Amino acid sequence: MLTEDQIRHFHTEGYLFLPETFTQEEVEILRTEAEEIYRQQRPEVWREKSGAPRTAFAAHLYNEAFGLLARHPKMIRPIEQIFGEQVYMHQFKVNAKASFTGDVWQWHQDYGTWARDDGMPEPRAMNIAVFLDEVMPINGPLMIVPRSHTYGVLAAEHDTATTSYPLWTLDEETVTRLVDQGGIVAPTGKPGGLLMFHGNIVHGSAGNITPYPRKIVYLTLNAVSNYIRTPTRAEWIAHTDFSPIIPTEEDALINYARRFRQAAE
Amino acid sequence: MLTEDQIRHFHTEGYLFLPETFTQEEVEILRTEAEEIYRQQRPEVWREKSGAPRTAFAAHLYNEAFGLLARHPKMIRPIEQIFGEQVYMHQFKVNAKASFTGDVWQWHQDYGTWARDDGMPEPRAMNIAVFLDEVMPINGPLMIVPRSHTYGVLAAEHDTATTSYPLWTLDEETVTRLVDQGGIVAPTGKPGGLLMFHGNIVHGSAGNITPYPRKIVYLTLNAVSNYIRTPTRAEWIAHTDFSPIIPTEEDALINYARRFRQAAE
Repeated sequence: MLTEDQIRHFHTEGYLFLPETFTQEEVEILRTEAEEIYRQQRPEVWREKSGAPRTAFAAHLYNEAFGLLARHPKMIRPIEQIFGEQVYMHQFKVNAKASFTGDVWQWHQDYGTWARDDGMPEPRAMNIAVFLDEVMPINGPLMIVPRSHTYGVLAAEHDTATTSYPLWTLDEETVTRLVDQGGIVAPTGKPGGLLMFHGNIVHGSAGNITPYPRKIVYLTLNAVSNYIRTPTRAEWIAHTDFSPIIPTEEDALINYARRFRQAAE
Repeated sequence: MLTEDQIRHFHTEGYLFLPETFTQEEVEILRTEAEEIYRQQRPEVWREKSGAPRTAFAAHLYNEAFGLLARHPKMIRPIEQIFGEQVYMHQFKVNAKASFTGDVWQWHQDYGTWARDDGMPEPRAMNIAVFLDEVMPINGPLMIVPRSHTYGVLAAEHDTATTSYPLWTLDEETVTRLVDQGGIVAPTGKPGGLLMFHGNIVHGSAGNITPYPRKIVYLTLNAVSNYIRTPTRAEWIAHTDFSPIIPTEEDALINYARRFRQAAE
């Protein structure tokens, strides 16, 4: 459970970082499965211009380990606590930020897209990043502009040129103004860290030219009452199964990891 | 003067970082002059694909403040101490790494280019970076692979595609192997820091999507006896004036900065 201080920090700053939330055993199986998924040719797996994997959508629906992560009580309970109701999975992806070639994500807010493309009534959906590799200052960490969630949805342009994924991105003047006020934080740390942030937080990440990959699971839990009204995107990008997530037992993922390892030995 | 420990660190690790070597008064005038230079249209000023400034060559020859920096005793004396002889300016540039659009420099060694393109006999030339802006983990700091200078000149490919400046770059396997052994350091700190590194050190830098520009003066001091034998590049890229640099008085740059400020007030 989150403390009162943690909840206040989330509402004031727009994000909350919980280092080393998942164990190394849990993370290791997810990392192995992610590599396996990236080798698959399927519509849910998107690639950089270089051919390196960029993101794998909806992995919780076709991979058992990610399915267990998606219902992990350490992830679900804190978000229920903040929203005061049950949540469902709006989006689930495994972002690669591959070594040497991992590309930029320009500065953007997510709720703008959820509102415009999916008809989500309010920004009552939580972004969550789970670190599968160590996130360092030099391998393209997620950068967040604290307190930028207090300005609502900002004017944005549809960028289809800069990177391999179309995004509604913010202009330089807007980002400069917000950073002047809130600065930039880039939480880093060991695999297993959990970073949650508000749907209106301005965020982005630079490219990665180091030999260190920086895979993160990046998912969005939406309050059930805030289900999307007018979906236009593929089901595996913006889900329309609005049933509340029933968390697993605390040790479901770790037990899976142990069974998997025993079978491999 | 450098201590014995500092000199040993340089020879072992291949680099030495001296934080806040130049005063804020000195750095401020250089920053102002750099902005002025970047506005000029001249062959020495190169730009990114986006049009943002990337680098300004030979600024010490057409700008008085940079001319004084190029002869600053705090820069010249330590290098003379390491090489045991006088030095001359082989290359001098002001790299912009502009906010939002600053582009990547792929992993490379410099001495390979000096040997191949300029006919420099030995790697007895020192790379020096002087920070004009604060260098942070998130605005594209120079990244160095410690101890990579001990492998001599590594095989490299001429990369004319990735970025706006042709470079002899190293392949991913080589960089991975070197990083496995030496790790990566990315010295950061306030404006005025001085980072010196061996001509065979493998280094690079990621792009900069933050609103924080990261200008550095990036220069190469060559031992006079090691002058280049077969120049092929423009004089303002690889200089052929081999006369030893006579350092200025300690306070020459700071006095210039004060005169400049008084004139502006």
